[in-house]
Amino acid sequence: METIGVGLLGFGTVGRGVFEALAMNGDLIAERTGVRLQIVRAAVRDLAKTRVHPAGVPLDFFTDRAADVIADPRVRIVVEVMGGLDETQAHLEQAIRAGKTVVTANKALLAERGRAIFELAAREGVAVFFEASTAGGIPIIKAVREAFVANHFTSFHGIINGTSNYILTRMTEAGLDFAQALQEAQAQGYAEADPTLDVNGWDAAHKAILLATLAYGIWIDPAQLSVQGIDSVGAEDIAFAKQLGWRIKLLAGIRVQPDGGVSVGVHPTLIPQDHVLASVNGVFNAIALHGDVVGDALFYGRGAGSGPTASAVISDLADAATALFSKSVPRCSGVRPHSLYGRIVPPDDVTSRFYLRLAVEDTPGVLGQIASALGRHGIGISSALQPEQHDPAGRAQLILMLDRARSGQLRAAVREIESLPCVQPPAKLLRVETLKG
Amino acid sequence: METIGVGLLGFGTVGRGVFEALAMNGDLIAERTGVRLQIVRAAVRDLAKTRVHPAGVPLDFFTDRAADVIADPRVRIVVEVMGGLDETQAHLEQAIRAGKTVVTANKALLAERGRAIFELAAREGVAVFFEASTAGGIPIIKAVREAFVANHFTSFHGIINGTSNYILTRMTEAGLDFAQALQEAQAQGYAEADPTLDVNGWDAAHKAILLATLAYGIWIDPAQLSVQGIDSVGAEDIAFAKQLGWRIKLLAGIRVQPDGGVSVGVHPTLIPQDHVLASVNGVFNAIALHGDVVGDALFYGRGAGSGPTASAVISDLADAATALFSKSVPRCSGVRPHSLYGRIVPPDDVTSRFYLRLAVEDTPGVLGQIASALGRHGIGISSALQPEQHDPAGRAQLILMLDRARSGQLRAAVREIESLPCVQPPAKLLRVETLKG
Repeated sequence: METIGVGLLGFGTVGRGVFEALAMNGDLIAERTGVRLQIVRAAVRDLAKTRVHPAGVPLDFFTDRAADVIADPRVRIVVEVMGGLDETQAHLEQAIRAGKTVVTANKALLAERGRAIFELAAREGVAVFFEASTAGGIPIIKAVREAFVANHFTSFHGIINGTSNYILTRMTEAGLDFAQALQEAQAQGYAEADPTLDVNGWDAAHKAILLATLAYGIWIDPAQLSVQGIDSVGAEDIAFAKQLGWRIKLLAGIRVQPDGGVSVGVHPTLIPQDHVLASVNGVFNAIALHGDVVGDALFYGRGAGSGPTASAVISDLADAATALFSKSVPRCSGVRPHSLYGRIVPPDDVTSRFYLRLAVEDTPGVLGQIASALGRHGIGISSALQPEQHDPAGRAQLILMLDRARSGQLRAAVREIESLPCVQPPAKLLRVETLKG
Repeated sequence: METIGVGLLGFGTVGRGVFEALAMNGDLIAERTGVRLQIVRAAVRDLAKTRVHPAGVPLDFFTDRAADVIADPRVRIVVEVMGGLDETQAHLEQAIRAGKTVVTANKALLAERGRAIFELAAREGVAVFFEASTAGGIPIIKAVREAFVANHFTSFHGIINGTSNYILTRMTEAGLDFAQALQEAQAQGYAEADPTLDVNGWDAAHKAILLATLAYGIWIDPAQLSVQGIDSVGAEDIAFAKQLGWRIKLLAGIRVQPDGGVSVGVHPTLIPQDHVLASVNGVFNAIALHGDVVGDALFYGRGAGSGPTASAVISDLADAATALFSKSVPRCSGVRPHSLYGRIVPPDDVTSRFYLRLAVEDTPGVLGQIASALGRHGIGISSALQPEQHDPAGRAQLILMLDRARSGQLRAAVREIESLPCVQPPAKLLRVETLKG
């Protein structure tokens, strides 16, 4: 049986996970694929750092020079699980130029610099795999590229950041506020000491960029996205949403708009409580999609962690190794831009339904003033809730579910409403997604 | 761009679906894969039958001889969507011997005769693809073979028969009895005039055999399975289960047993109402699996119908075509038996928790007699329910949730209980699955 040598850039949680899964299930994988995967070298940042030396590997298994791994003639596939941008990009480009197949889990790098990397790989005839970059153990890259190849995708809606889903779940189930839930997530190891990219929505946004790039064959500039984190969600919003039959999830939304453009964004979003996505709780991820041939489909699983990510990396390794073995250029790698879709829709032009929460003077005529302001901007109210309880400052709370409107139009209306004397800014604005079609 | 010629055996709902999806999205598929798929010939049973002649195909597109399609030198991939056993097997074997790649949606054929077909294909070096055979639009074959290649699978639990799931959903939501719900399913087009294979569990069993064969690399004789249909589920069972916090689903279960054997079966099963599978309603399918590396994952989608099945067939076509294009033997086809798992566990040796419903005399001491009988067989009771309402014959109803027990042992205990004078046979026995691990 042929053995394919693999080099690791990075030996943290994911790198070690890949090593251990191959040690544990290597025989099974070899029986299934006909190829044996062997990790022959691993680059780490600091050789002096105390780490358990894996059983059965030579003393020079570790190096602190990525170039040693890339240049090693035994290494035919370079697995990048070190993270980072500039330096890491240089390593990957070096590997591609050396003709090594690349497997990477680096969503930030691919979302920010993917075009340069994929175009270089195409020129060099080298495969770049990235299943582990998006939604961990959920094989959404393979599904979009291969399983649903027959489909024009109408939409994707994903819960693709486990940390923020854990926080929102705890806020919903235990009534915690954001700070309490974040603290609990950190204590459980579900949030990092610096949770910025998780709670501000950008981790999910990077994954959404990769999904949309692949599904629609277009390069996407992150600056084109509308991204809102869960730090803007209050415990009271979750409670009001629940009362109205909705759950709040950090939702990555990708949708073909009526004019053929594609909208890509990440927002805390009210979704119907009886939709399957609403029951995706804790650190789990899920992605619902609609294809014009297959209809509705949904994938659910762990989006992060050593095991799920290692499972995805090894899936790529098996695809890469069998392609090397059969000396074919695998279809299942890289991103192939194509000509059938137009462009990203500017965030202000995206239409959505919205939830609007306002603190208002408890006097007659207030609702009329607000409804009139919305009406002047052509925005209808589909339902309203004014609960008995007032906010701590003694103001009434007003929750309005708004009809579909252009985001830019809505923001203009909200600015006007915030300037009304009877309204105490800021207004709270969240997306509402019925998840139909 | 290279064009790959495709021949269809069958032009019913699925065959026409494949043709139409390729007509609609052929340009997109070609951009994505670099290969153009063209259906050049289709075999139908009856040429005289009135059918809409597809646009843009020559008059001799249809033939009533499958051999014409197989022998056509333009045809490099034969798609079998005609159903049937003996004659169809002969066609597929003829195609394989002619060196044509085979794509089939025929679960019954592969479950009953797969070994002969896959072994012939392996000898001839020909690829056989079968994504559409199992769970329609859900890409579970690709997931098991490729995406989760790193995993030993602990278990699979699937709702993989849309007809029976529709019937159970309507019984649960609208309180219909089995006959009413079946009638409604037929009126909606979700059940065929002869619904036997759907309601007796064998359609799901065929899919479970394919999944287990692929996941564990073993050939499975259908006679080794325990299969129970939904025709045995009463409206009262659904109501009692609901009262106790469970939903009844027709569940295909595949599980590695403590001794390393694999159990495969299909049963109406009580599952926890808050598990994601419990919210899979109507004609939708879903498969939950647990892998030792990836952990829990779940796929959800449409399991039948023209579009979802066509989407799966075209996924196979794209894999097959790109493999032909690159002249490699694709890994992603056929079944590769391997040596790492033992055998199918005989149904009587499979352990499970159970739900037992009895009609009993409403006299003191009855529960004691029943509990003693169970105790003699080493079976514990985890909870009991005796509702106020009696059955139409004036007997009390007794619902017992039993601890885990060997199926054979339990059946022996139930036979003994049914012979007690205070018990009116037959007892109703259903599986209970907590879906943990």
